[in-house]
Amino acid sequence: MARHATQVTRKTHRDTATRLEHDCIGSLEVPAKAYWGIHTARALENFQVSNIPDSTHPQLIKAYATIKRACVTANEELGLIPGVQAGAIRQACMEIEGGRWMNQFPVDVFQGGAGTSTNMNMNEVIANRALELAGHKKGDYEFIHPNDDVNKSQSTNDTYPAACKLALIDALGPLAQSTDRLARAFHRLADRHANDVTVGRTQLQDAVPMTYGQQFHAFASFLKSDIAQFERLVPRLAVLNLGATAIGTGICANVDFRASATRHLAKMTGLPITAAPDPVAAVTDMSVYVAVSSAVKNLAIHLKKAADDLRLLNSGPNSGFNDINVPARQAGSSIMPGKVNPVIPECVNQCVFSVFGMDTTVQWAASEGQLQLNAFDPVIIHSLLSGMELITRVMDVFREECVNGITVNVEVGRRYAETTPSIAASLNEAIGYDDAVEIAKEAEASGRTVREVAGEKTSLPAKTLDELLDPITLSRRLGQTCRERVDRSGRERGNSRGGRARR
Amino acid sequence: MARHATQVTRKTHRDTATRLEHDCIGSLEVPAKAYWGIHTARALENFQVSNIPDSTHPQLIKAYATIKRACVTANEELGLIPGVQAGAIRQACMEIEGGRWMNQFPVDVFQGGAGTSTNMNMNEVIANRALELAGHKKGDYEFIHPNDDVNKSQSTNDTYPAACKLALIDALGPLAQSTDRLARAFHRLADRHANDVTVGRTQLQDAVPMTYGQQFHAFASFLKSDIAQFERLVPRLAVLNLGATAIGTGICANVDFRASATRHLAKMTGLPITAAPDPVAAVTDMSVYVAVSSAVKNLAIHLKKAADDLRLLNSGPNSGFNDINVPARQAGSSIMPGKVNPVIPECVNQCVFSVFGMDTTVQWAASEGQLQLNAFDPVIIHSLLSGMELITRVMDVFREECVNGITVNVEVGRRYAETTPSIAASLNEAIGYDDAVEIAKEAEASGRTVREVAGEKTSLPAKTLDELLDPITLSRRLGQTCRERVDRSGRERGNSRGGRARR
Amino acid sequence: MARHATQVTRKTHRDTATRLEHDCIGSLEVPAKAYWGIHTARALENFQVSNIPDSTHPQLIKAYATIKRACVTANEELGLIPGVQAGAIRQACMEIEGGRWMNQFPVDVFQGGAGTSTNMNMNEVIANRALELAGHKKGDYEFIHPNDDVNKSQSTNDTYPAACKLALIDALGPLAQSTDRLARAFHRLADRHANDVTVGRTQLQDAVPMTYGQQFHAFASFLKSDIAQFERLVPRLAVLNLGATAIGTGICANVDFRASATRHLAKMTGLPITAAPDPVAAVTDMSVYVAVSSAVKNLAIHLKKAADDLRLLNSGPNSGFNDINVPARQAGSSIMPGKVNPVIPECVNQCVFSVFGMDTTVQWAASEGQLQLNAFDPVIIHSLLSGMELITRVMDVFREECVNGITVNVEVGRRYAETTPSIAASLNEAIGYDDAVEIAKEAEASGRTVREVAGEKTSLPAKTLDELLDPITLSRRLGQTCRERVDRSGRERGNSRGGRARR
Amino acid sequence: MARHATQVTRKTHRDTATRLEHDCIGSLEVPAKAYWGIHTARALENFQVSNIPDSTHPQLIKAYATIKRACVTANEELGLIPGVQAGAIRQACMEIEGGRWMNQFPVDVFQGGAGTSTNMNMNEVIANRALELAGHKKGDYEFIHPNDDVNKSQSTNDTYPAACKLALIDALGPLAQSTDRLARAFHRLADRHANDVTVGRTQLQDAVPMTYGQQFHAFASFLKSDIAQFERLVPRLAVLNLGATAIGTGICANVDFRASATRHLAKMTGLPITAAPDPVAAVTDMSVYVAVSSAVKNLAIHLKKAADDLRLLNSGPNSGFNDINVPARQAGSSIMPGKVNPVIPECVNQCVFSVFGMDTTVQWAASEGQLQLNAFDPVIIHSLLSGMELITRVMDVFREECVNGITVNVEVGRRYAETTPSIAASLNEAIGYDDAVEIAKEAEASGRTVREVAGEKTSLPAKTLDELLDPITLSRRLGQTCRERVDRSGRERGNSRGGRARR
Repeated sequence: MARHATQVTRKTHRDTATRLEHDCIGSLEVPAKAYWGIHTARALENFQVSNIPDSTHPQLIKAYATIKRACVTANEELGLIPGVQAGAIRQACMEIEGGRWMNQFPVDVFQGGAGTSTNMNMNEVIANRALELAGHKKGDYEFIHPNDDVNKSQSTNDTYPAACKLALIDALGPLAQSTDRLARAFHRLADRHANDVTVGRTQLQDAVPMTYGQQFHAFASFLKSDIAQFERLVPRLAVLNLGATAIGTGICANVDFRASATRHLAKMTGLPITAAPDPVAAVTDMSVYVAVSSAVKNLAIHLKKAADDLRLLNSGPNSGFNDINVPARQAGSSIMPGKVNPVIPECVNQCVFSVFGMDTTVQWAASEGQLQLNAFDPVIIHSLLSGMELITRVMDVFREECVNGITVNVEVGRRYAETTPSIAASLNEAIGYDDAVEIAKEAEASGRTVREVAGEKTSLPAKTLDELLDPITLSRRLGQTCRERVDRSGRERGNSRGGRARR
Repeated sequence: MARHATQVTRKTHRDTATRLEHDCIGSLEVPAKAYWGIHTARALENFQVSNIPDSTHPQLIKAYATIKRACVTANEELGLIPGVQAGAIRQACMEIEGGRWMNQFPVDVFQGGAGTSTNMNMNEVIANRALELAGHKKGDYEFIHPNDDVNKSQSTNDTYPAACKLALIDALGPLAQSTDRLARAFHRLADRHANDVTVGRTQLQDAVPMTYGQQFHAFASFLKSDIAQFERLVPRLAVLNLGATAIGTGICANVDFRASATRHLAKMTGLPITAAPDPVAAVTDMSVYVAVSSAVKNLAIHLKKAADDLRLLNSGPNSGFNDINVPARQAGSSIMPGKVNPVIPECVNQCVFSVFGMDTTVQWAASEGQLQLNAFDPVIIHSLLSGMELITRVMDVFREECVNGITVNVEVGRRYAETTPSIAASLNEAIGYDDAVEIAKEAEASGRTVREVAGEKTSLPAKTLDELLDPITLSRRLGQTCRERVDRSGRERGNSRGGRARR
Repeated sequence: MARHATQVTRKTHRDTATRLEHDCIGSLEVPAKAYWGIHTARALENFQVSNIPDSTHPQLIKAYATIKRACVTANEELGLIPGVQAGAIRQACMEIEGGRWMNQFPVDVFQGGAGTSTNMNMNEVIANRALELAGHKKGDYEFIHPNDDVNKSQSTNDTYPAACKLALIDALGPLAQSTDRLARAFHRLADRHANDVTVGRTQLQDAVPMTYGQQFHAFASFLKSDIAQFERLVPRLAVLNLGATAIGTGICANVDFRASATRHLAKMTGLPITAAPDPVAAVTDMSVYVAVSSAVKNLAIHLKKAADDLRLLNSGPNSGFNDINVPARQAGSSIMPGKVNPVIPECVNQCVFSVFGMDTTVQWAASEGQLQLNAFDPVIIHSLLSGMELITRVMDVFREECVNGITVNVEVGRRYAETTPSIAASLNEAIGYDDAVEIAKEAEASGRTVREVAGEKTSLPAKTLDELLDPITLSRRLGQTCRERVDRSGRERGNSRGGRARR
Repeated sequence: MARHATQVTRKTHRDTATRLEHDCIGSLEVPAKAYWGIHTARALENFQVSNIPDSTHPQLIKAYATIKRACVTANEELGLIPGVQAGAIRQACMEIEGGRWMNQFPVDVFQGGAGTSTNMNMNEVIANRALELAGHKKGDYEFIHPNDDVNKSQSTNDTYPAACKLALIDALGPLAQSTDRLARAFHRLADRHANDVTVGRTQLQDAVPMTYGQQFHAFASFLKSDIAQFERLVPRLAVLNLGATAIGTGICANVDFRASATRHLAKMTGLPITAAPDPVAAVTDMSVYVAVSSAVKNLAIHLKKAADDLRLLNSGPNSGFNDINVPARQAGSSIMPGKVNPVIPECVNQCVFSVFGMDTTVQWAASEGQLQLNAFDPVIIHSLLSGMELITRVMDVFREECVNGITVNVEVGRRYAETTPSIAASLNEAIGYDDAVEIAKEAEASGRTVREVAGEKTSLPAKTLDELLDPITLSRRLGQTCRERVDRSGRERGNSRGGRARR
């Protein structure tokens, strides 16, 4: 039997020109101009669902091309593919990695088949572009074949998850950078208010004094810890299963291919790529997707915390906390004149809720694999990349349109700090909790400050009381100013940066 | 072949006495005193998971006994079981329905097998108790057999979901009553403050005046709508599949059994029991569980709304809204003297979060059926009944320990109502939105009221302004007082009550 | 003070021409060609988040214009707006309802502000288009003002949720129709196989015989029940709060406006529009969104059930169930030759998981309102409409690309029906459960059929055994053929149709 | 003012004897025999919700006592508490850590107040037991005071989360051990079947050969990776905030207390305890709870995978996969004789669904903090510990009642391996993908094996074909036997063990 010349009857010379291609189901005309072939054509027909094409996620397309380039290089090294073909394929991959041909990846992101359509699409585009580069016509698969050459030693089971994981590493870069920019914005705000006291509130009740600096610094600390978690994900995402092919058995792959492809990919990407220790388990293990989703969800929880708290602190102006003012961005009401609302934090909240939905989708998809495959990676990667992109963008909006413009009503805060009955806690040491209770209760009932009541009811010297009850001193007991922390975390940030981004 | 005399070798006369029983796997000694038999013994051995026994949910046990009683009555009517046996079985059922023998249902709620163990347990206890009542020894299954007699014309596939659904109807009763009690408590609170104005807040910003009565009345309205939804669930829960037996085919059941059992059960319970139109679909359709879970979740969302808002309104005393005071129930801090926290609303929130978890569990279990059965009803019914009971109890705690004792700082509210810049909306009609904006802005900037600024900046007569800007008038534009609404909803409540509870 | 002539300095005559508009924050140039104005311009600047514009959901834009049309008609009726302005505004609304000007609604769907930007955008586009229609220039707000005229007697708090609810009713139409088409496809498949027996499987174990018709009919029944639930949502969605304005107090609205606007809207839409009984509660009650989300989720659970079961029944060809063949739609593997996979059901599963995510997002957003507003409607309506559209489309794909082409391996099914040991259940009545156990066990152990073993081991006549163990008879005990059910449900469908769709 | 002698009017000498205690709300009689005092009494009255007492989670009680012991030691070291009192307090702590007095912790797990009630309960029990040990009467708080002495330098804000985190470390021990036991059981099963081939299935379609050993080994690999993640949580859980007191400011705490308490606790527990770098952020950061929940959820996903797959492989006996037999544990049906169901895997699934619910609850609670506190730790710790315990137990049940008894139908598997058309993939290299498609299609259509068809249709020598198509060779291409992997992972396990458990 001869190798199929999938093929090449160019019907007309006009735009509607097609070429005829074959697969196990039959044959189909595909547009002559298309780099994709019959498998892509089938998928286009089958998945008219969301109208969101694979190319919506360029990270995925580019990463897949990188995988293919590493694989063809390994195949060449092992003598499994001649240099001419290998060179053309490699060149085609690099063009795709550079962002060219993005419009050749039109398959719906809601595709069945565990990514096979995306892999087939990639094989076809690379094969046809490589054919062109080698001076052949598109469809001349005798010379370069999508499956036998571009997909050699590979299956969807190993390359698609590999592409997904590289794409996630790629998406973590901008996400971490946006997180870092927002953290720095909170740090700057904290610095400006390192000495402005207000009252801390627990269970929304007046507690003890703190500074606005401490409040804003905490938001930055949350975000910093998220960046650290993102960095810990990279080595887990870099565990790939190249060469394991169908169901992790390595069928159709040269025994040395696994090591070679892994090595080449590591070199090409600069990432700590390793081969999964149990290749059969690796095919169906969705843990790292769940971990990415959990990490992004945790960032979202932190953003919700910041947005919620800013909305609380901004409440008022007359009937609320009135600690801060988020910048006025637009008229707040179609009916209430002059009302201005915290629309940017509200926007953040809504993106957070979408990311929570993403996490649900990922959990479901990750939990529904059967036997040797989980067919639902496509919705996982689509959900994760969409969620990460949304949260990346909204953090920039949050920073630029809100955090950078926040002002603090320092006099309001100072009054809160001075009048909180809970400041009586500072007297526990000197007079005991039970007596401090009495002072706090009397202060609250009479509308006086704890300092005033304590001056009457205790024998402590005025100077001692002034010291014990000074808000700024109270907020400094653990010995660090915000600025010190900013400096230190700045240094830490400098050190830890770098290994994160993919290129 | 002879019918198995499952059996009766009483080994000793002491407490450790056992009898030997058989099943398709082999034979086993069971305690002579136990009314349950070998199938229950196996289940006890198999499911040592949560140590929460089926009897934790007496509604389920009682409902199952009612189902069995309707079935034996139908079997007798159709001449399938003699009167002596039928009578004894019926008597045993009634004892269980009355709460006796609850300790005979010890199987773990986390049981595999789609409820088969609970059904077997029920069959065994009824059989053995009926044997006793008929003057026979426990285990004398020649006379009354757990499967051939108690389970006649039935399978787990039809009776277990039937019992679950009746149990849910039963649990909806106290849930609705507790919801109603809480709604009435909010109504009373609303009545007391029908004329006390404060400011409404949208997006936590001062908006236009309203009364505390309207605020609290809204909580009651939410709860009333939940009760209405619970009532709509009853007819859906009353669609049962008796007589459909295994996978809905009706195998082993007399063709007239379905109608007869359905009719007897309707009579016994007073509920609008009907037979599912597609018996095969009915076996695997989990819709009604999802619907119950959604309805309970919606109640939980409303409780969260009330608890969240009360915590906000209670914030302060100095640095918060300070609209209301939730009653002091305990010292709030181990360190801050005199601090009192809204612990009851916080407790409500936590129960709400548990109910949200319940909904997740139910959704998963409901979504994982395969072919002719969903084997996961046990975790569904356990989760639903637990969640409903928790939320029932916490609503009573909420009412007694918090809502009934709430006091309002009416002077604070009045000040808010008078100073809100958004009250300028009331001038839109007279002077246009754009000019009203200018007045609102100046009022806010200068710290004066809109009334004062409008007096200077518009040519409107003082009387007109007083009328336009009177808070109590503004909050009454839609023409109803709280009391009127309370009265009306009281009447509605009276009318709709009754059909809800099971007995 | 003069009413603001927001306005009209046309800077140049080229494409970059602008006009200057004002708001409470300041002034801004907006493109002279734009029908939207300064409020929309601010929102465009603020919400650069998802790049998904409001116009992605034409149902929402059209519904909002309908609301505005009803409101202007009510205002005219009450003498609050002159006929000339009212007529122009009405005309502008109808153009938008007809789909024109969709590109004038560019604000990001992830917008803060509880829909205020969408309302403002709508007010501006209607005002400017009405100005044009009345022979005025855009921006000549002295003649027709976005807030004072188009928004008269309204606020975002009442009109935005009203538009959302009408949009949901609108989206339920195609959703129900697609559900119905899929149900009919399953019905047709059921009809074709009403007499083809196979084995029912419970807990994936061979149970008793049933027909493929019953299996497929169950899928149709699930879907029918979902349609019934959708229909029950319509009256709940038709409870609106027009005239309640800010926080439900009715401020700025004529007391008769509520009744008039509600009446006009009911007439215009043919829907059973009613006014919410507690207008303050109605502003913050998210119950109906939660209910829509739950109903769509329940449909998704049913689709998952069908897709999961079809994938199971299609498993094989050699090592699986091999009951059915889903149509081959594309090559299934880049490496395994000739492998064809159930890609369409897998696609369905992934859409289901997305809808589960939608439900999570909706629950969060619905649970996070504060005091007199829930600011998160925008993400709720975006999530619901997106999810409903996705599931609508994928049901059509499911039907066309999969269900319509399913074939059944009837010989395989028959063999399963004949060899299942559980068919021995049919002997329970005649010989008792315990003896039937023995026969089932021997049949399974020896690889013979229950019929054969029962012939030897019981004294039942051959004819009796043949009757008792005939699979087709066993599957018919509840007395209905699929065709009968199809016919009846077809009639029911006919009767219940109609009230559902909005226009 | 004198320090309150909270106390001591012993009313009677009978069981109903009480003592009178005081707090900021008033005074209350508490049972004279109780070690707990007025704060606990209030909490008992307030939280009658679930009837699940704190003592349900002994890990939490014991960990809290350890924290208190470290704190009193630090206080003594800093000269803040005299040796006599310190010694008695320390002794009381150790008794509690040893499990004594567990019944003295009766407060409902659904408690408002961020753990204050549990802290107060702990302070009271320790104080009163220490008083006894020091020869004083219960309630003689002049000598040892619950707040001034036991709680010195502490608040609930710092000690309660510290206790929660230690309790989680403690619970991770048995969880990891049970996970490890289950992994070993799968390893043993894998070993027994390292050379028994079957077919791998992707998308439930016949794919290429693999061994049962590989299948079962994958389950073990999943579990091993979970253990690794648990171990990574320990250092994150060991970041505590002792000495940060209320809202993280360190108020009421000696500046050296933080370092001292942290050091003592590290020594006492052997854990790598460190102090949080940003103490204010640490109070409200819920990240580590979210991380624990995510890790436990991921384990649950893996258990679901194993349970789902075992149920699939066990399907049949006639109409399913019939690869394996899970052990028969009980009669499977009340009606179908001899039917045996996979009840243990079903039980696993249901626990998994409960854990998914736990994760939802934790996410909600973690996301709802406000300003300087998240008041919802109690429901977080209750949900996490309950979920972890449930999953720990069910893994043991899974192992003992199911995995250990699984048998494999090796002949069935071998037949599958030989007949899968996808084995033609092995010919891709030799004859190309397109020709291999033809062979696979013909094999499937004719019911012959690929080996037979390839013998006719290709010119490849018989020996080559035999080699290329040998299932066991195909499954070994990546060069490892299961045994090798078991050995290696056994070694790894040995190395990594140890640091995990708390004591």
